[in-house]
Formats: sequence, structure tokens, C-alpha cells
Amino acid sequence: MVKAGIIGSTGYAGSELVRLLMGHKDVEIVWYGSRSYIDKKYAEVYRNMFEIVDAVCMDDNMEELADQVDVIFTATPQGLCASLVNEEILSKVKIIDLSADFRLKDVKVYEEWYKLEHKAPQYLDEAVYGLCEVNREDVKKARIVANPGCYTTCSILTTRPLVAEGLIDPNTLIIDAKSGTSGAGRGAKLPNLFCEVNENMKAYGVATHRHTPEIEEQLSYACHQPVTINFTPHLVPMNRGILVTAYASLKPGTTAEEVRAVYKKYYDHEKFVRVLDEGECPETKWVEGSNYVDVNFKIDPRTNRIIMMGALDNLVKGAAGQAVQNMNLLFGFDEDEGLRQVPMFP
Amino acid sequence: MVKAGIIGSTGYAGSELVRLLMGHKDVEIVWYGSRSYIDKKYAEVYRNMFEIVDAVCMDDNMEELADQVDVIFTATPQGLCASLVNEEILSKVKIIDLSADFRLKDVKVYEEWYKLEHKAPQYLDEAVYGLCEVNREDVKKARIVANPGCYTTCSILTTRPLVAEGLIDPNTLIIDAKSGTSGAGRGAKLPNLFCEVNENMKAYGVATHRHTPEIEEQLSYACHQPVTINFTPHLVPMNRGILVTAYASLKPGTTAEEVRAVYKKYYDHEKFVRVLDEGECPETKWVEGSNYVDVNFKIDPRTNRIIMMGALDNLVKGAAGQAVQNMNLLFGFDEDEGLRQVPMFP
Amino acid sequence: MVKAGIIGSTGYAGSELVRLLMGHKDVEIVWYGSRSYIDKKYAEVYRNMFEIVDAVCMDDNMEELADQVDVIFTATPQGLCASLVNEEILSKVKIIDLSADFRLKDVKVYEEWYKLEHKAPQYLDEAVYGLCEVNREDVKKARIVANPGCYTTCSILTTRPLVAEGLIDPNTLIIDAKSGTSGAGRGAKLPNLFCEVNENMKAYGVATHRHTPEIEEQLSYACHQPVTINFTPHLVPMNRGILVTAYASLKPGTTAEEVRAVYKKYYDHEKFVRVLDEGECPETKWVEGSNYVDVNFKIDPRTNRIIMMGALDNLVKGAAGQAVQNMNLLFGFDEDEGLRQVPMFP
Amino acid sequence: MVKAGIIGSTGYAGSELVRLLMGHKDVEIVWYGSRSYIDKKYAEVYRNMFEIVDAVCMDDNMEELADQVDVIFTATPQGLCASLVNEEILSKVKIIDLSADFRLKDVKVYEEWYKLEHKAPQYLDEAVYGLCEVNREDVKKARIVANPGCYTTCSILTTRPLVAEGLIDPNTLIIDAKSGTSGAGRGAKLPNLFCEVNENMKAYGVATHRHTPEIEEQLSYACHQPVTINFTPHLVPMNRGILVTAYASLKPGTTAEEVRAVYKKYYDHEKFVRVLDEGECPETKWVEGSNYVDVNFKIDPRTNRIIMMGALDNLVKGAAGQAVQNMNLLFGFDEDEGLRQVPMFP
Repeated sequence: MVKAGIIGSTGYAGSELVRLLMGHKDVEIVWYGSRSYIDKKYAEVYRNMFEIVDAVCMDDNMEELADQVDVIFTATPQGLCASLVNEEILSKVKIIDLSADFRLKDVKVYEEWYKLEHKAPQYLDEAVYGLCEVNREDVKKARIVANPGCYTTCSILTTRPLVAEGLIDPNTLIIDAKSGTSGAGRGAKLPNLFCEVNENMKAYGVATHRHTPEIEEQLSYACHQPVTINFTPHLVPMNRGILVTAYASLKPGTTAEEVRAVYKKYYDHEKFVRVLDEGECPETKWVEGSNYVDVNFKIDPRTNRIIMMGALDNLVKGAAGQAVQNMNLLFGFDEDEGLRQVPMFP
Repeated sequence: MVKAGIIGSTGYAGSELVRLLMGHKDVEIVWYGSRSYIDKKYAEVYRNMFEIVDAVCMDDNMEELADQVDVIFTATPQGLCASLVNEEILSKVKIIDLSADFRLKDVKVYEEWYKLEHKAPQYLDEAVYGLCEVNREDVKKARIVANPGCYTTCSILTTRPLVAEGLIDPNTLIIDAKSGTSGAGRGAKLPNLFCEVNENMKAYGVATHRHTPEIEEQLSYACHQPVTINFTPHLVPMNRGILVTAYASLKPGTTAEEVRAVYKKYYDHEKFVRVLDEGECPETKWVEGSNYVDVNFKIDPRTNRIIMMGALDNLVKGAAGQAVQNMNLLFGFDEDEGLRQVPMFP
Repeated sequence: MVKAGIIGSTGYAGSELVRLLMGHKDVEIVWYGSRSYIDKKYAEVYRNMFEIVDAVCMDDNMEELADQVDVIFTATPQGLCASLVNEEILSKVKIIDLSADFRLKDVKVYEEWYKLEHKAPQYLDEAVYGLCEVNREDVKKARIVANPGCYTTCSILTTRPLVAEGLIDPNTLIIDAKSGTSGAGRGAKLPNLFCEVNENMKAYGVATHRHTPEIEEQLSYACHQPVTINFTPHLVPMNRGILVTAYASLKPGTTAEEVRAVYKKYYDHEKFVRVLDEGECPETKWVEGSNYVDVNFKIDPRTNRIIMMGALDNLVKGAAGQAVQNMNLLFGFDEDEGLRQVPMFP
Repeated sequence: MVKAGIIGSTGYAGSELVRLLMGHKDVEIVWYGSRSYIDKKYAEVYRNMFEIVDAVCMDDNMEELADQVDVIFTATPQGLCASLVNEEILSKVKIIDLSADFRLKDVKVYEEWYKLEHKAPQYLDEAVYGLCEVNREDVKKARIVANPGCYTTCSILTTRPLVAEGLIDPNTLIIDAKSGTSGAGRGAKLPNLFCEVNENMKAYGVATHRHTPEIEEQLSYACHQPVTINFTPHLVPMNRGILVTAYASLKPGTTAEEVRAVYKKYYDHEKFVRVLDEGECPETKWVEGSNYVDVNFKIDPRTNRIIMMGALDNLVKGAAGQAVQNMNLLFGFDEDEGLRQVPMFP
């Protein structure tokens, strides 16, 4: 049994990690870290875990944790993981960081977008960007896995094949993304109150959202040139789900068959990416609670643009599920172990 | 591998059965029955099943089905199962009926509340009411299992221990139940449209709901006397979940400790019934997607009544999950096989 | 033009008062009190008021306010109004208190249920309980109007005619109430976050909710005897709306016609109480945004109980609308001035 | 009093028209047309109207109606209005058509996008496109007003000033729109069921939605050149509200101040269009139930694109409210008569 510790286990992503790992046959959670709830029973913070998790919340002591576990998940605010990690810890455990600390290779970009000093830039090169469908082999050998962002995972998996194959001009890319509210976290803030979110929609972080450089960096690797995009997130009154609608200029003359062939080339062997049948638009409900990403596209011959669409569950493939997938790669388990949930409908 | 067939696989309860059985290690679904979608791919009816279920919908031929499977689930409107079942079929397969056809022992009560002629009253005596926590041993030996209703399961598990032990007067029992909308089924009816249900609440079927006699019959077995209750269901704008708030006069002098001891006596060894800590009110979200029922109570010394509360997921413990639990009993599997989902939150 | 001041104008009830008064032809709001947002533009706290309200939030200085306005609305936490009011203030202005400070005549009951010392018990006798349909004439002459609670208004209007006419035994009364989330206020608390409330239901304050003694007191006036009831509130994932389902033993032999005649007797001349047609169950959506209360009932001959049902918008008839109705009585305006909104559907 | 008749009064737009006209001091509805509910009481179709509307539903006889009323609203499926209108009718009444029949000047474009033969192309030239903020003077003199579509109103008001002033390249325009579900109408269709829409999001009509040519035509008038755009609608789990996020290349060197000045130039004198303060993103909740449209923008200097945003209530400014606004122009009433509702929050 692999022993796992979670720092930040009482946020929504942390608790989803608990839910998934409870169903993983080769892993045991031995440390439920939560700075806010130290000494409180985990099942009192998340009543769904009553009679399932018997543990008490622990503090964020990564040093001590490194002695007790094989893998540490950090589901914490930006900056914490970078501030705790060191060589001794890395010599003992694998780290899967669900925050943004190790996602961007360029420390300046990180500090500019996150308004934070990076406390461990020496590990930026080594850390592997844990988008399994892209970096599978590198993940297997990593010490630090930078688990991708929720919007990022959806945006990249939806658009990357066409960027990589040169079928779209990456600098015309506009990504309009919509998210359920669990992405905003469990903090008690007025804008996240039920009555403020319910029956309401809005854009936020327009032209300034932190997932923008992450998408750009990954797409630039795919096409070997700098990429600058527009990315606009929106808040929608539902718990889970991200929907991405992406627009780009299509290489003149490209047919739907060619586009479909490219998607198939990249994803036919990928269990968790489903290329939908022609004419089907992804719906977040069809992937809820599962690690799937559904993608599809439509060409608009009037404007010669292509509209690419993708849907995932932000807490699963957009966070905890992808973290488990990365863990499976790190420890040589079946990649879908603990991730075979059928999407829940309705 | 046990082979299973589902008649009515494209309703919400049927599709939940598919979701759960896909995760059951000892069962294989070989027949996806759906009168409305014959010859259509199942995954076109439920897109969440894309690349998971490859089958095509079949008709309702129970005779042919009996030759191919070990167990038939009927998730169909009232009357269908009773009209199809016969001795030859029962000699070949087990039947778990999710409709009401075999829940009530008295054919007159059935015909009065359901306004239907019963087509197979000869099997009413033999059929076992499949509330596992009550009839576990009988279920194991049954040919026909009458899977309980959603409201009924929640109402009975919430109140039965106190009825059985004589701590409440069963004829003072008033059950006020609230349900998410999936209980109304997938029929395209105006009152179930999003805009009619969302931001709305109402009672319905007041004093006439068909689950009333089912609750009464089961409680009367528990206390060996006729029971007549008030039962009022309500529709609430959410997909899944039933919450029961039940009121009854408490036997004078009964303490909270005594009540708790009774609940513990009945449920301490039951995996799927969780008696919450003192002061905690059940919330439907804490059981969503799982087979759990959460129960608790509060005594009001001012009126000497007790308020009993219970919550479950109407599609799981209230329908498909309970059906799987019954199947596990029928075939000697672990009772929780395929039912180990941790409740999904948020 | 009557000049109005609102203390607590940035809570949900306060902002609803602003919405309604903006459409009242004889009233002008001249003071937007809000301890939390002093000096901030009101329209920055409630963006719906952009280009509609130009004012800046003021503090809670009731003395100064009394010099500037004709009527003060206090939409504040319990205790504040009682701590500010005095004889000089009352000599200058009318006060409509939306908190519970002057609803209960017995100071001991107040202090026991609210766990607060009452700072102005000398006005309890004088204050008029502002349920217009019951105390219309007294309201007209009052200096302090105690605006009823949301659950209370719905509970009393739904059950009082039958209590008053002796058709039900008031001590068998069980009120099961369900509310949208705006009743919980705009405080940034974890249990009120979107993801905690959405797709969830629960009871709360079981056997201890503060609206219980208020309902009991008013019903006891109606039947001239002490009344003790069960009252259980529930939280439902919607913004607005309260639904009350009330159960009581019916006087033997009472017919539906007699019951209907009693409701008609009390409400036929009441604009804001609609007795629905036979068989229709009240739905909160049918009154949303308006000052209506819809009521109806069903007799269950099996148990000889009656099920009474009522629905209102908790922010309108349950709070701000009723406050405006009281103001109209105080100042001799048409009782429905500013309250002619047609319910908004969907 | 102007007498009004509504054909199609039992759809969501029709019923919203009833709600608004009930509060209009100069209009009386004398004909509630509804092919589906002839002879049924209107208040039985919409229970919110109980004791407010006493009328019975009538058929669609436009000839007879023309003799009885001053203005006819057609809130009906495409094709109906065009099939009924004729010279005699137009000689007697004004027609405000909420369908698409008279929105597009080019009959070929209509027939291509709507897959319908146009039955009254002779009136296309004469009909005035009833976007009051654009065609105010022409509306006043019209016989047929083509009331704009919901998405269209939001898209045009959000983007038109910048198109008209040449600040954006109209052929780079990409409009990503999100709508609540009332836009889908009250038809009993499976995809509109609560459980299918709730907790779900999807794009639909990608590259083929019928509002596309309507937006293009109107924007082309503004910039005196053909415009071809991308338009993608999405379905979001809420009742009311449209949010538009529009992207376009900004004329090089244009500053935020210049853009703001243009918006102010077009909208400073428009009551119903609110240009939000810098940095504020429109939210649908801030306009709910009202005739307002909130707009704003953000420039992204990294891509030199501008992101324009707009929000409205699809049933008010997107349908019935705009129809009333047009009626007010036609009959010389104050343009905001009957439309002074403050947005309802929460």
C-alpha cells in the first residue's frame, strides 16, 4: 500500500482527493492536513465522510509528513508548497502539487501573474507539468508533479491537437470558459454566497486570469512558437463543471474530416479524453463526478473559424482526479485505478 | 459473472442501475431494455455512457430475456412487471422489480391506490419486500424482490425502530417528505420543465400519494397493529435527494438516550444506515451518489413529540442502489459490492 | 411626500425595502443606513441600483434620523432597535421594526428564545404586531409596528382562520416550513455558500427556532387559550420563497365546504391573501416578487387531519412588503400602494 | 386607454407581456390569445395571475382582433404573424411582432436560416426593426414593429457603438452568449427538463443559430459594410438572463478612455442602457426582472483585442419589455411607462 498525505485536505479539491483515494485499492491516506481544522475530526468538516474517515485533521508539517508517507498532495493556496519543499523532503517522497507553484517554468511570469515571490525557483526546471495525456513519460520519473489548473486542463486538451498540427493559428485563439462555483473554493466570501451566485452569471478576471500564461506556455511547446491568447472565465450557478468554447482561425482549406482525424490521432488511445460524435456538443453533466474530458468541434465556413469545445469536472479531471492519475503514473499503477467512476447523471 | 438484464434501462432509475452495475465486479449487463429507444445506441440516450456502454437498446421481451440472464431488473411503470411475469420465467431467473407491483400484500389496496388491475396477484405472497435492513434473510431466498419506493425507504428506515420498540404512537405519525426532481422521471411533461421547477417549491399528492399504504403496511408489521399515517411529498429544485421529517408523540418519559440506544440497536451493524451524532440534522448532500441513509432525531419536550429525520439519494438507496444491494443478497455477494461509492460533495 | 429612513438598508430585507419604496409614489427614502458600509455608495453595495439610487450609506444614528424623516424602518439584527428607541424619538417618527424586538409581548419569552436582554421592555405593550390582515385598525394608530417574521407570517395566515373558528385543535398543530436561502441573510458564512446550499436540503433549528413562540402567541390570541406547537424550518436551494405545510386534527365531522367557507370569510376581502381553488397546492413561484400569500388545504379522511398549505415570498410579504403595507396603514395611503407587483414567473 | 391583444399569451414571453402590461397605466389587455388553451382561464395556465387576470384564452383570429384592439402583440412561433397579417388589418391596428418574421430585410436570408417560406415579404421593407435605442424615430411611425431577438438585443447594444465608430474591426467579432432556460420556451421537451438542465452547461446551435444574421444585418447598417461574425449561444441552469461576451480586434492605439467616451456618447441619454463603472463586469442578476441592459468592456493590451460584455433579462429587454417600450413609442407614452421596475435582487 502506498501511503499518502494531503496538505489542504479540507478545501473542495482536497476533499475530492479523499473521495477518490477512498476507492483506490493501492493507496491509504495517513495524513489529513488542514491548517484551519487541526485536531478536529475530518468527518465533522465533511459530514459525507461520517463512518468512512475516522481521522483527525493534522497540521502542515511537510518534514514530518515526508517521513511517514510515500506521496504528498498539496491542495493549498499558491506559495505554500514552494515555501515548504526542500531537497531532504524530495529525497523521501513524491510531491503532487495542486497549486500553481510549479506549473510555469519562468519564475518572472509566475511572480507577475501571481503577485508572489517564488520560494523554490530551483525546482522549476525539474518539476513536470502533470498533464498526463501530454507528459506521461516524464511524469513517471518526476519528483515534483505540477498538477495543472482546472481551466487549463480543459483549454489545453480541447485545443492542443490543432495547435500542434498547425491546423489553427494559435495567436487567433480566444478561449471563453465557464465554470461551476466549486472552483472558487470553500472560503466564506460574500460573492460566493448562494443568493449571490444562484440565478446569476458573470465574467471575472477578464484579461487577467492566472490560468492564461499556463495555457500559453503549454500551447507554445506544442507549436514551437510563442502563443498569446485571450482567456475569459465566467461563473455559472452550478457546483461542478467547466465548459470551454474556443475560437481560432482555421488553416485555409482544412476539412472537418482532417480536423477529426487529428483529434483521433491524439486521443484515440486516451481513456479519459472522449472525442464526441459529429454534431454533439459537450455537456458538463455528461462527465460529472468522473475523470473524463469530452471534446468536439464545429467549423464555421462563413468566417473560416473553428469552434472547439471541451467539458470536464473541475474537481476531478480539473484537480483531484488528475492528481490521482499522476500518482498512478508515478507508482506504476494502472493509469485509471481509482478513476473508473461512471459519470453521474442526473 | 452474473448476467443481468434491465427492462426500462433508459429511465433515471434504470440509468442509475447501469452506472452502479458498471462498477460491480461480478455482474455484466447483457440486455438494455427500453421500449422507447429500441435499436438506438444506449450511449446516444445517455451521453455520459459514451465509450463506456456500447450496447443497443432492446425491447421488453421478458421470456427471451429469461433465457439469457440470471437476474432481471424491471425499472418500469407500475403494472408492466406484473403483466409479464410467469412461472416459467421465475423458474429461470430472479426478478428485482423497482416498480410497485409486488410491494403491497393486499391486492385491493394496490388496485385502490394505483387504479390498476393487478395481473399477477398469485405472486404477491411469495414476493419479498426488499428493504434489506429489514428482510435480509428473506431476500436471500426470494424469486421476486419488490424493491421499495424512494420515499418509503427513507420514511421506514427513519421511523421504524421507534415504532417497533413502542417508543412512538404510530397513529400519530406525520411524515413530511421533500424530494429532488429526478423522482418525477424523465418524461417530457410541462410541470417538470426547468423553469417550472427551478426557484419553486410545492406539495403534491397531498393525502393521496401511493407510497402511503406501503409505509403503513411495513410499519404495521413492525408494531403488530394497523398503522394509519399522514404522508405529504414535496417537490424541491434539485436533482437528487429525499429528506424526511417525521413527527410523532413520544411515549411519556422517554429520554433521548433511550431513543438513541434504539437507533443504535437497529443500525449499529448496518453499513448503509448512519445514525448521526447528537444535534446533527441529516442533509441530502452528505449522501448524494451513495447508498447511505442518514438518520437522526430531536425530542421536543414542550410538545412531547419527537422529530425524526432521514436523508438518502432517491436514485441510489431509494431505487437502483437498493436494487443492487438486493441482488448482492440474492447471489451471495458482499452486500456492499458495487456500492462503496463515497458520497460526492459538493 | 413621506420621508423614510432605513437602518440596515444593505441586508437582503433592507434592499428589498429599497426596491419596493422606489416604486411607491408617496414616499422618498432619504437615509440609507448601513453600519457596515458607511460612506460607500449604495449602488456599489447593490449594483442593481446603479443609476437608480444615488445615495451614500449612513450610520445608525436614530436620534438624528428622527429629525429628518417621518418613518424609520429597522431591518437590523435583534436587539438593535430596542437599544436605540426612546420617547423623544417616538414623539417625532413612526418606527417599523423588521427585527423581533417588539413582536413578543412577554419579555421573558423574548429573552429566553433570543438569549438577549431586552433594552426597551416599556414599549412592548404599546407596540402593535404588524400583521395587517389581523391588526389593521391597531396598526393605523401605532407608534411602533413590530413587523412579523417571515415564517410566522406564512404560518399564521395559513392556519389562523381554522384556529380562530375552532375547526382544528391548536395543540395538535405541526408546522413544517421550507425556506429559500435569502432568509439566512447576506452574512459571509460557510453554510450559506453556493456549493453548500445548492443541491442540498436540511432541517435546522429543530424544536428551537425563534419564530415558534411568535406563532404560538398570535394563535393563542385567536383561540383565547395557550397554544403549543411544533415548528420545523428547512433550508431549500432557492433564493426566495417560504412554503408552509401544517397538520392538525380536524374537529370531527367538519367538511371541506365548511373549511373553505371559513377561509373565505377571513380572506375574501383581503387583497394579498389568495385562497386557491380546490385541489390546487400553493407554489412559491406563483407569488415570487409580490406581496401575495397563497393558501389552501386538504382534508385527509383516513386520519381526520387537515393539511393546510401556504406560500409567500419571504422578502416581500415575509419582510419588506409587509413593512410597506404597514407604512401604508400608518400614513393613510392605499394599502396596496407600491405593492401592486404581479408575481414574476418564471 | 389603449386596447391590446396578445396572440401567443401563454408562452413565457407572452406571459411576461401580461405581467408588464398589468402595471401599465394607459393600456388594457382585452384579448389573451392562445391556440393551445382556448376557453381555459388564463389564471389556470399561469397561477401567478390568480385573482389578477380574470380572462379566458381566445383563439388566434387576427381579423377579429383587429376590430377590437389598437395594438396586437404576436408572441408566437416564426411564420405565424407573416401568415396572418394583411393590408386590412394593418389599416386598423399596430402590430408588434415578437417573432423573427419581420426582423430581416432580405427574404432569402430569412428563408435560408429559418427554413420557412415567408408569407408576407411585401411588408419586409416597411417593418421597422424595433431596437428603440437605434430606431426610435422610425418606430414611432411604424405599422409593423419587428421586436428584436433576445440574444440580438444584448449582442447589438453591447457592440454596436464600437462598430459604428470604427473602433473595432467588425469582421473579427466573436460573440459568445449564455442564456437562462426560459429562452427555450414552455414546450414540454426532454432537453428542457429540470434534471437535464440543472447542474449542466452546453453550447448549442454552434455556427447555425438564427440570431446570427440578425446581428450581422444590424451591425452592417452601423458600419456601412457587410459584417460576418461568429455567434455561439450556450444554455445555463437559471431561469432568466443573457450574458454576452464579445471579442474583437481593437483599432491600434485606441485607449480605454476613447472607448468609454464612445459608449457614453451612445448611451448617456438612454435610460435602459447602463454603462457600468470601470472594472465592473455585468451580472445578469443586477438586471433581473427589469428592462435594463448593463454593458462594459475591458481592453487586453497583450492581444490588442477588446472584450465587450452585456447583460439583460431575456424576457424583459430581450422580449416583452422591449415590446412595451416599442408600444410606448408607437402611442406617444413615456418611453419607460410600465417599465420602471427596479431589478430584483436576490
